Amino acid sequence: MAAADGARLGVGMVGYSFMGAAHSHAWRTAPRFFDLPLRTEMTAVAGRDPEKVAAAADRLGWQSSETDWRRLLERDDIDLIDICTPGNTHAEIAVAALDAGKHVLCEKPLANSVAEAEQMVAAADRAAQHGVHAMVGFTYRRVPAIQLARQLVADGRLGQIRHVRAQYLQDWLSDASTPLNWRLQKDKAGSGALGDIGAHVVDLTQFITGERLTGVSGMLETFVPERPVATEFSGLSGTAGTETGPVTVDDAAVFFGRMSGGAMASYEATRYANGRKNAIRIEINGSAGSLAFDFEDMNVLHFFDATEPPATAGFRRIVVTEAEHPFVAAWWPPGHGLGYEHAFTHQVVDLVGALAAGEEPAPSFAEGLAVQRVLDAVERSASDKHRWIDLA
Amino acid sequence: MAAADGARLGVGMVGYSFMGAAHSHAWRTAPRFFDLPLRTEMTAVAGRDPEKVAAAADRLGWQSSETDWRRLLERDDIDLIDICTPGNTHAEIAVAALDAGKHVLCEKPLANSVAEAEQMVAAADRAAQHGVHAMVGFTYRRVPAIQLARQLVADGRLGQIRHVRAQYLQDWLSDASTPLNWRLQKDKAGSGALGDIGAHVVDLTQFITGERLTGVSGMLETFVPERPVATEFSGLSGTAGTETGPVTVDDAAVFFGRMSGGAMASYEATRYANGRKNAIRIEINGSAGSLAFDFEDMNVLHFFDATEPPATAGFRRIVVTEAEHPFVAAWWPPGHGLGYEHAFTHQVVDLVGALAAGEEPAPSFAEGLAVQRVLDAVERSASDKHRWIDLA
Amino acid sequence: MAAADGARLGVGMVGYSFMGAAHSHAWRTAPRFFDLPLRTEMTAVAGRDPEKVAAAADRLGWQSSETDWRRLLERDDIDLIDICTPGNTHAEIAVAALDAGKHVLCEKPLANSVAEAEQMVAAADRAAQHGVHAMVGFTYRRVPAIQLARQLVADGRLGQIRHVRAQYLQDWLSDASTPLNWRLQKDKAGSGALGDIGAHVVDLTQFITGERLTGVSGMLETFVPERPVATEFSGLSGTAGTETGPVTVDDAAVFFGRMSGGAMASYEATRYANGRKNAIRIEINGSAGSLAFDFEDMNVLHFFDATEPPATAGFRRIVVTEAEHPFVAAWWPPGHGLGYEHAFTHQVVDLVGALAAGEEPAPSFAEGLAVQRVLDAVERSASDKHRWIDLA
Amino acid sequence: MAAADGARLGVGMVGYSFMGAAHSHAWRTAPRFFDLPLRTEMTAVAGRDPEKVAAAADRLGWQSSETDWRRLLERDDIDLIDICTPGNTHAEIAVAALDAGKHVLCEKPLANSVAEAEQMVAAADRAAQHGVHAMVGFTYRRVPAIQLARQLVADGRLGQIRHVRAQYLQDWLSDASTPLNWRLQKDKAGSGALGDIGAHVVDLTQFITGERLTGVSGMLETFVPERPVATEFSGLSGTAGTETGPVTVDDAAVFFGRMSGGAMASYEATRYANGRKNAIRIEINGSAGSLAFDFEDMNVLHFFDATEPPATAGFRRIVVTEAEHPFVAAWWPPGHGLGYEHAFTHQVVDLVGALAAGEEPAPSFAEGLAVQRVLDAVERSASDKHRWIDLA
Repeated sequence: MAAADGARLGVGMVGYSFMGAAHSHAWRTAPRFFDLPLRTEMTAVAGRDPEKVAAAADRLGWQSSETDWRRLLERDDIDLIDICTPGNTHAEIAVAALDAGKHVLCEKPLANSVAEAEQMVAAADRAAQHGVHAMVGFTYRRVPAIQLARQLVADGRLGQIRHVRAQYLQDWLSDASTPLNWRLQKDKAGSGALGDIGAHVVDLTQFITGERLTGVSGMLETFVPERPVATEFSGLSGTAGTETGPVTVDDAAVFFGRMSGGAMASYEATRYANGRKNAIRIEINGSAGSLAFDFEDMNVLHFFDATEPPATAGFRRIVVTEAEHPFVAAWWPPGHGLGYEHAFTHQVVDLVGALAAGEEPAPSFAEGLAVQRVLDAVERSASDKHRWIDLA
Repeated sequence: MAAADGARLGVGMVGYSFMGAAHSHAWRTAPRFFDLPLRTEMTAVAGRDPEKVAAAADRLGWQSSETDWRRLLERDDIDLIDICTPGNTHAEIAVAALDAGKHVLCEKPLANSVAEAEQMVAAADRAAQHGVHAMVGFTYRRVPAIQLARQLVADGRLGQIRHVRAQYLQDWLSDASTPLNWRLQKDKAGSGALGDIGAHVVDLTQFITGERLTGVSGMLETFVPERPVATEFSGLSGTAGTETGPVTVDDAAVFFGRMSGGAMASYEATRYANGRKNAIRIEINGSAGSLAFDFEDMNVLHFFDATEPPATAGFRRIVVTEAEHPFVAAWWPPGHGLGYEHAFTHQVVDLVGALAAGEEPAPSFAEGLAVQRVLDAVERSASDKHRWIDLA
Repeated sequence: MAAADGARLGVGMVGYSFMGAAHSHAWRTAPRFFDLPLRTEMTAVAGRDPEKVAAAADRLGWQSSETDWRRLLERDDIDLIDICTPGNTHAEIAVAALDAGKHVLCEKPLANSVAEAEQMVAAADRAAQHGVHAMVGFTYRRVPAIQLARQLVADGRLGQIRHVRAQYLQDWLSDASTPLNWRLQKDKAGSGALGDIGAHVVDLTQFITGERLTGVSGMLETFVPERPVATEFSGLSGTAGTETGPVTVDDAAVFFGRMSGGAMASYEATRYANGRKNAIRIEINGSAGSLAFDFEDMNVLHFFDATEPPATAGFRRIVVTEAEHPFVAAWWPPGHGLGYEHAFTHQVVDLVGALAAGEEPAPSFAEGLAVQRVLDAVERSASDKHRWIDLA
Repeated sequence: MAAADGARLGVGMVGYSFMGAAHSHAWRTAPRFFDLPLRTEMTAVAGRDPEKVAAAADRLGWQSSETDWRRLLERDDIDLIDICTPGNTHAEIAVAALDAGKHVLCEKPLANSVAEAEQMVAAADRAAQHGVHAMVGFTYRRVPAIQLARQLVADGRLGQIRHVRAQYLQDWLSDASTPLNWRLQKDKAGSGALGDIGAHVVDLTQFITGERLTGVSGMLETFVPERPVATEFSGLSGTAGTETGPVTVDDAAVFFGRMSGGAMASYEATRYANGRKNAIRIEINGSAGSLAFDFEDMNVLHFFDATEPPATAGFRRIVVTEAEHPFVAAWWPPGHGLGYEHAFTHQVVDLVGALAAGEEPAPSFAEGLAVQRVLDAVERSASDKHRWIDLA
């Protein structure tokens, strides 16, 4: 089994682009600001191109590199596999890693299909019997404002939840001349806005409310079905050539559903909301209070307490940078805001803490599968005249 | 026919509570700030209780009162009937008034059913042949920021519309001890949040985009099915007794749809959004720009122009109080904001202007019927497993 | 004496432009929404040009007109003089009116000099002995959010006041081609931004805190010393001719001071803050809490309660439209915001209430004088190397 | 001289608490996200306590530790001294380091007195003749939104600057039971809110406008003159004992001044603004436009372009996370906000870039001295009846 060798936790990462950079930063930074119960080591990174992966190892701070992710599974100095590749590769790598006795941190969405996700959950269940654990990277859960939101709901400050209202709005595809990339190809990405960003708001709303979606009706759309093929990439953008190719995923998704506690829920995910850059907007109304969050102002949570006298009640703008707030004491004084990558560092902190304690880290693969089932139901609804799909 | 006798326009109003007060203020105020082409007179108000209606006439500024609205139709000094009663009475009064040759301004929603609304449109069509006109009171259209939104879309500043996102959020029913009132009774109100406030956002989004909803899927909910019966009323609230009675309308509605130009649209209407008082929130994303509005900050329109260089692009907070903005020049200097009732005054201005010009005022009864059909489709979808309903 | 003849209060107004229109609206509207203890009548308006004043009477709703304000003082059917003329005329009219036994409502600033203001206070003191009262029109005090701010301070919710931070920002002179008007001429206006808008924030901060400024240091500036002479006016703007003339007042004022309770206070008033239309921004920090207000979002007050646990403390955005809020119950349901002119209506309500009760209305002329002394001290400081000026 | 040995730059840091942690993170992180022209090495950290400094070296990522900062100056493998100690030690260390041929990065404020700062500038001038450079750590300059603000002014988008309005508001001393720490002791900190946080807004406004303050009038206050002595510290807070001790610095500062281009400027710095956590608020009004910034929403810059038509003009909320924005391309996609510590990383990037190019990094010690002179003038004004102090 992969249990930490003494106090050491060797990490092997697969993939090293956008997500790989974010994860590397987290592995480098977590032990500098937090007291981790295990001594993490950035043992190796794997990628197919030998020169590129070696350069990435050097740049991102990994001690070595491998050109085949299977090599990471064979190494004794590696206890955990951190999967940062596109969704079509998650199932194979994760199942193999878990079966090889390595803990796994897998980027979201868990997989490109429910079937794959189910295999991964099965593998995680097998592994758990040997003290090997799996976690899916719904990183936004570790934004302090989101953690505070969860606490407020858990503490009953919202009462009975009646409305969930969630949107994930971006605009980087709004320009029809933005070139194709793998996120627009079904074979690699599985789905488009729905799986890439909609998955986050499905998970976040389930996490914050502690409830599950029990059914959905949805609608998908591809506004720009054909785009220039990029000749060179840089992050999400690239240099467009003269050729064009088909977009095979959704550009946007709109759906509503019912939460297990009875709340009405509405969702939207799009990359066509001009002017909205990374607006993860979540609003929850309960019988005793309400919450509102927007990632474009990520250090703030708005909270309305309906038990206050009407004359002085109002949404409070809580700047979530106090020492009393989750994760914050390790960082800076009040008002010195955190950024996007801090949530990755917090994810490492919680993951390492759970492994050291021999506990299942959250979100589990089962939670990842639950999200996958929602995405799948939305797709089925959208392709069948928006009919209602029950979720078990 | 009802055409203005000389330059005079005699008005008879039916009903004198919340809406009646707002309309009266508008009739009193419009000629003080605007140059109206007709000399409006507040000739009479009708209500059933002789003492109460006389007191209302005195307080609200009407020259006389009647205890039967039919009397207004018989009077020669009345050219226009302003209907401010609950929705179940609209059809009878409006049809009779139009057939009697009186212009009609009818509060929204146009009627409590599609069938009634169709009768009203038929009556409006008949009347129009004699120069008698009808208008439905979707008053929020006349908020200057909404007018500016319409202009920007009409001028092409948003390009092709891709997303419509609309919510009408209130919280006055969030407290389960708030007593029953006629707005919670199907026979009087027709529907609940859907017809009372959802109707506004359906109309506003169709008005701003210049498009129509072509189909919807929806969900309704009644969170608190039984409420105390009020023994006395005051505005929307009242004094609760010990008896309870059933709420026979929806408390909240969530639905999505497709606009005639291809945009995806999502809607929500609720009186259970704790902390949101009158949040009419509309956001529209197009290929060339975006708009965002919230009635809780009603003098502001947010506009994103996607044709600007990325380094300086951003949602502009336009304070819609410049002389260049619709209706504003008649009021105060820049930054001296308008309030809720100004839209009613603007409605009178446009209505009187259209009548003087012999033109059909907008929104017409046909536009009111179009909204009614959307509401009806949402109800049918909600009662049939949220299935998609096509709108002709 | 001018005491109400039975239950009637006849009003005579002097001046009928921007302020006159606002006051007229208030006299027309107050009895429609509030139960006034006196039956107000809009008896007469005075102005020099017979045709213009007659047209104004007709448009604004006055029963008659006079071409000399002295005639209003002679009329038995007039009990109160409402002074809406430029500041250089206030002292003469107010003193004469009070001495003639008429109540007075005088627009701010009380006068163009401390000496004049002192004469007015003396006249008010004389009149008070005969039950005749005077009030100065610091109208913004009657914005509900400002009233709530005052209540919170009075209730001790802010503790000891430590900081007062006030700005009144406009931008209508930012464009150097905007023509001259009387507000830019010292003989008529007395001072510029300082007296016109700075006066408001001086009064508001003294009102909200219940404290007085005990000394100031200040700086004035005229950015555009020469402007085109307008050939025709319309509100604050006009049509520029080719001639130019000197601006003889300040364009902007910056000053700091000390409150009687020990707080530090900083002020700014300018008509050159591009993009700020009527931003009356007041922020107060106390040992137990803080307040923030911006007139550009006039229906909102932000309140921070420092006694709350740090994890959930935050500025509350109170939408001041609840029935529990000052003046609001007479208007609309929650969230249906009020506008600029409502404060004028509230001013009438309080004035009439005080007169009926035989009480001194607030703000008194003495309070107006206190503001005048602050403005005077700022001017003296600014003209003498910004030295500190003690206020008795 | 200290010029980079080949491509290597050895860094020695003095001090390792709050600022030391932030600087260490920057030295660790800069080479991971940016292509630095020199190979930076975190060679050694110095502190008095051997065990603590060794632990800090381990935790913060320094290769070795020293118990005397003078040892850093003697080491050949160290090219740059990074000074993160309280202000009373800056002059001695910086002068010695520069004279020893080491580049210096010195935290702000440059020194605790003008005299010390002048010595430091003299040392920097001497060193510059040998290619040895000095920089003062006004880190907030490297927040992308601040960089964009500077660009907009430099590009003429604001026209002639007329108003500068700057506040630095915190609230961590608002509670009178918060214990004493070195920041409240004049011998260590030099001054209180004025030097600690006021210094930042003085520098930022001079940086953004490209102008200098030419004179000031000011007021200082110590609201809580006696505080409990802390028995143990943790960041800015600590555990209070029963003893108390005197606060020997200002709690808050308010001042106004004149910019070299003629603008009026007002400033405030306080640690008593309840509810404001780290509100660095800067607003600049020019003849062609305006800017507004608040560090509590640090990834946003508000920009008003007065050349736009009035009907569509408004403050733009620019989310400063586009690849086109300064420093951003190295980080994450649009909307994935940065945090407080990123500015430190950007500071390292610019410092290393300047050193590699043989250029003077900015802000220079001379710029630090300029700020020091302003602070000194404010103190002199405050202690002499708030009189105006000219700055050369």
